[in-house]
Amino acid sequence: MSWTITRDVIPGLARGAAVLGTGGGGDPYIGALLASQALRLHGDVTVVSLDEVPDDALVLTVAMMGAPTVMVEKLPSLDEVTAPVRALGAALGRAVTHIACAEVGGVNSTIPIAAAAALGLPLIDGDGMGRAFPELQMVLPTLYGIDASPLAFSDEKGNVGVLNTVDNSWTERIARVACVEMGCSVMISGFRMSGAQAREALVADSLSLCREIGEGIDSAREAKTDPVAQVVALLGGRELFDGKVVDVERATTTGFARGRARIEGVDSALELSFQNEHLIATLDGQTLVTTPDLIIVLDHDSGEPITTEGLRYGQRVRVIAAPSDERWHGAAALAMVGPGYFGYDLPSHRFDGRVETIAEEDAA
Amino acid sequence: MSWTITRDVIPGLARGAAVLGTGGGGDPYIGALLASQALRLHGDVTVVSLDEVPDDALVLTVAMMGAPTVMVEKLPSLDEVTAPVRALGAALGRAVTHIACAEVGGVNSTIPIAAAAALGLPLIDGDGMGRAFPELQMVLPTLYGIDASPLAFSDEKGNVGVLNTVDNSWTERIARVACVEMGCSVMISGFRMSGAQAREALVADSLSLCREIGEGIDSAREAKTDPVAQVVALLGGRELFDGKVVDVERATTTGFARGRARIEGVDSALELSFQNEHLIATLDGQTLVTTPDLIIVLDHDSGEPITTEGLRYGQRVRVIAAPSDERWHGAAALAMVGPGYFGYDLPSHRFDGRVETIAEEDAA
Repeated sequence: MSWTITRDVIPGLARGAAVLGTGGGGDPYIGALLASQALRLHGDVTVVSLDEVPDDALVLTVAMMGAPTVMVEKLPSLDEVTAPVRALGAALGRAVTHIACAEVGGVNSTIPIAAAAALGLPLIDGDGMGRAFPELQMVLPTLYGIDASPLAFSDEKGNVGVLNTVDNSWTERIARVACVEMGCSVMISGFRMSGAQAREALVADSLSLCREIGEGIDSAREAKTDPVAQVVALLGGRELFDGKVVDVERATTTGFARGRARIEGVDSALELSFQNEHLIATLDGQTLVTTPDLIIVLDHDSGEPITTEGLRYGQRVRVIAAPSDERWHGAAALAMVGPGYFGYDLPSHRFDGRVETIAEEDAA
Repeated sequence: MSWTITRDVIPGLARGAAVLGTGGGGDPYIGALLASQALRLHGDVTVVSLDEVPDDALVLTVAMMGAPTVMVEKLPSLDEVTAPVRALGAALGRAVTHIACAEVGGVNSTIPIAAAAALGLPLIDGDGMGRAFPELQMVLPTLYGIDASPLAFSDEKGNVGVLNTVDNSWTERIARVACVEMGCSVMISGFRMSGAQAREALVADSLSLCREIGEGIDSAREAKTDPVAQVVALLGGRELFDGKVVDVERATTTGFARGRARIEGVDSALELSFQNEHLIATLDGQTLVTTPDLIIVLDHDSGEPITTEGLRYGQRVRVIAAPSDERWHGAAALAMVGPGYFGYDLPSHRFDGRVETIAEEDAA
């Protein structure tokens, strides 16, 4: 069940990761560059499925933390990518055996590939969210009681820190202010898990899904069929809207890219609210889809995923919705990533594939 | 040359430390409470002079970082005081042998006493400044090339971090934002030194001097002589001004207590500018004394030191100046702690005991 990431696999995988990244997780092109460089220098990366990971493995996640608006201008070096893993390995006094993705997203699915290549470690086919979320505690492992800390963070200057915090929200708070001070993007590693914990807490096979989505977009283009329809089918999702971006408000504040975008169609308008990732989709004032379900913006014709920092006036786009991992709909999960956490006074609208009849979930 | 800190020594020592703390370093009464509690629980503390410290000792400084305005409301527990030393000892993989003060000041001279008592370690008779300064890199060890990091920080909730930074200013920057996020006051430990390095880089005998000053104020009161004159004599200083506090502007911003105080005398007014510590004294618009020399505010009659957060309208005070450790007047030192660093477009006015003829130093 293991497979190999070679350089020709990376562009498709990064594109698919940017689709599941729901606007966040950074630019897939930049993410692909970094992973390709790592493979050229250190060789291919073996991807192992969760059922192949030994129970006593030492699994660490690796990710870039910060505002995607900054990440795209500050591509990390390979030394920077491996620094937090090395710092954490030293702090733990044990050899790290596997690297895992904390989330899926253009950069945050490819940085772990680069780290795995540079460290000569296998990468797990899975991730902590099945999508991207803006804060570091927002992963399924938090719901399974796995500590984010010890968590290491590092910057391009050579500064490194290791946090041991009382809960995962404090890891986020302290790492976030350090991240902002260090230039609004840092590399992090944490969420130490055994193989048994990873099997329980991660979303399985998500790198395979990223690759399938990315390659599906490619094949649809080659076959002159509709790439967007291909993505919708693969995700069990639905196309919500077709229109032109007419307004983007964006600010990089407190370490996040926050804002909203307005997309106008023939006789209606869709508004998207985001914090790194798309959180809420509203059609003519009516809430259609909310976090934790996936809101994805694709180029109208090519199906290329568009990140929140890549939204521009005049783009012709199609917006699709897809269900998140089922576990994000529990009460504790909704308290962590539901609309209320992000300051929206809305119940969670559960996406069930039929937008016309969206039912309101009981808010946590 | 070693001596013992018993509980009866602490109030005098804390009072003297608050004098040398030039307004910063926290409330001596609170600092004394914490040290007394530690001695009651763990026994007396042995103070060793720098020439008694073995060359291969492992010396760490311990201090409270944050705004004194917050410190006075958030007295640390003994667990909190020892947490960063324990975290750093674990990170270094070596037993800590001696505790040292980073600065002198009401809290920052007594917290190391508490830490030494709770850890059962000797305390060095010396400190890193011979006064107090607001930022953590502002110690003589920085001038001797000693790294602030690895530096550990901890809060009352149980959060701990360990930083490894590229220079001491980055240690300050990252620790400061973490400190602000963690509630504007944290315990820190760092500036790992050998005994040989400590002998070179610390100000010798400063705890003895604190005790002498504090006990000198006491004896003067008992003898009905002038406590302020006693302090002036002990420091080789000079009384600058006698008046009433008529205005205090104070804001706790970016983790510091910043502001200015206006003191009116019979026919003139002195203005003090501070950032945790007093930095500039200006008489009717003319700069009299600047950082790094010491500007100290004492109660008019009792000679009790008044911290910057303790300044109140209507207080009758006397302001004295005293020379800093000679090493603070080098060019690299002035770049780090001179008026220019704090945003004042002023040359450093070197205090030479004769205020009437103060000469302007060449600015760094």
